[in-house]
Amino acid sequence: MRTALTDLVGVRHPIVQTGMGWVAGPRLVTATARAGALGILASATMTPEQLRSAVREVRSRTDAPFGVNLRADAGDARERVRIIVEEGVRVASFALAPSRELIAELKDAGVLVVPSVGARRHAEKVAAWGADAVIVQGGEGGGHTGDVATTVLLPQVVDAVDIPVVAAGGFHDGRGLVAALAYGAAGVAMGTRFLLTSDSTVPDAVKARYLAATAKDITLTRAVDGLPHRMLRTEMVAELEGGAGRLRALYGAVRRASRFRRLSGLSWPGMVRDGLAMRHGK
Amino acid sequence: MRTALTDLVGVRHPIVQTGMGWVAGPRLVTATARAGALGILASATMTPEQLRSAVREVRSRTDAPFGVNLRADAGDARERVRIIVEEGVRVASFALAPSRELIAELKDAGVLVVPSVGARRHAEKVAAWGADAVIVQGGEGGGHTGDVATTVLLPQVVDAVDIPVVAAGGFHDGRGLVAALAYGAAGVAMGTRFLLTSDSTVPDAVKARYLAATAKDITLTRAVDGLPHRMLRTEMVAELEGGAGRLRALYGAVRRASRFRRLSGLSWPGMVRDGLAMRHGK
Repeated sequence: MRTALTDLVGVRHPIVQTGMGWVAGPRLVTATARAGALGILASATMTPEQLRSAVREVRSRTDAPFGVNLRADAGDARERVRIIVEEGVRVASFALAPSRELIAELKDAGVLVVPSVGARRHAEKVAAWGADAVIVQGGEGGGHTGDVATTVLLPQVVDAVDIPVVAAGGFHDGRGLVAALAYGAAGVAMGTRFLLTSDSTVPDAVKARYLAATAKDITLTRAVDGLPHRMLRTEMVAELEGGAGRLRALYGAVRRASRFRRLSGLSWPGMVRDGLAMRHGK
Repeated sequence: MRTALTDLVGVRHPIVQTGMGWVAGPRLVTATARAGALGILASATMTPEQLRSAVREVRSRTDAPFGVNLRADAGDARERVRIIVEEGVRVASFALAPSRELIAELKDAGVLVVPSVGARRHAEKVAAWGADAVIVQGGEGGGHTGDVATTVLLPQVVDAVDIPVVAAGGFHDGRGLVAALAYGAAGVAMGTRFLLTSDSTVPDAVKARYLAATAKDITLTRAVDGLPHRMLRTEMVAELEGGAGRLRALYGAVRRASRFRRLSGLSWPGMVRDGLAMRHGK
């Protein structure tokens, strides 16, 4: 199947595997690339060194194109952009819209820039700044975007911009791909569906929880990192949301941050800087 | 275009004009029927006498099939069912799932029963009770249904039941119809799009408000009648939601109920009964 997305990126199928933190590592991205779709490494949960090594690992296993997702508001975003450019990564995707300067720097180096957005005006903005394509995520998606449903948001964005539009939020099978193409999208991006594949490193127990869940088990919460996040209503979410009093909330936040720091290898000053940037980010 | 819906109902296009209170009267339904889609009279804002006269008015202007929407939990639901049967209306649709007995009574009289649902288990329930088709409304729809987005809910329901599924919630043009068919639906149901036609009796000033609105101007509120309702964030909604104190809220509720009663011609006891039924309804 040939669309504006397959032509742009050089993949066989108009399907994007999104950059999910922890989940989208070299193993999943390599498998996705080999299967003919666009895999995206999640770099927010990697140090710059880990990112470089992950890129090289994918590159050593396949010649197919792949991408790297980064947070435009991360303190070390420029360092990560340099790694992407130096390593010759095909696509840079962003969870939050990047600045005009960051887009220009990547494009000058021949990297395709594909931001994720949750509103029509954000799509118009990044398109005007030279983005090569845009991933539009409806409110039913898991990422940090808006609350407008895919059926409403997607046709609006397709009408508003001339670059290829990739539809995200609620897509999980071939029927969804056809529906997205009907709306004028050039392909679909999926997260959860890839999280549940055998190439995902997510533990089987977690996959089982997802498979057993129904739509009623999904919640929208800001309790995890301050930004709206659509996810399974797990014990952790219940604990975070039910915490009585600000002191307990602060204690919980520090404890979680500590754990996140240990797991991610990020520094405390870097985390505080990123946390403040996320709070102020749009 | 031929689908399971056009075959079932005998319409030329797999499109349903929903039974919007106040809006879906004889004029709009006649125009819809003549255009080849399925128009549905909204009976909740009519007295039984007004309903009978509206049905006769449409019948006098077109031979094409049309439907009547009613509240299964209304105190006089059986009286309205009798009118539908006596007047030979083709389709009975329901905003809330009807009882097994009500479905049986309508089917015995040769009326097609098409409930609206917002959850897979409700679709399974009414299908098991003999409903002829089901309108599945995603969370982005305006009616009183659930909060699961169309992209997630629709394929679930299509997989779960064997009767024709009509997709509602976020559909507004031909692209949406193709998308719905891709998911396996037999057609789409639309409200707002018909509200904005020249055959809608809604005042031009109101249509202008809709046309000027963006996705950001939509709100989900229980302030109007106690059930979740997705609608324009108007001054009225702001006033209802911002009302300080329970006394003021009670005063406002009585004032609005009084106005609703005057406009609808319903009796006070009937309104109170219906209001309690809605509160207890699922």
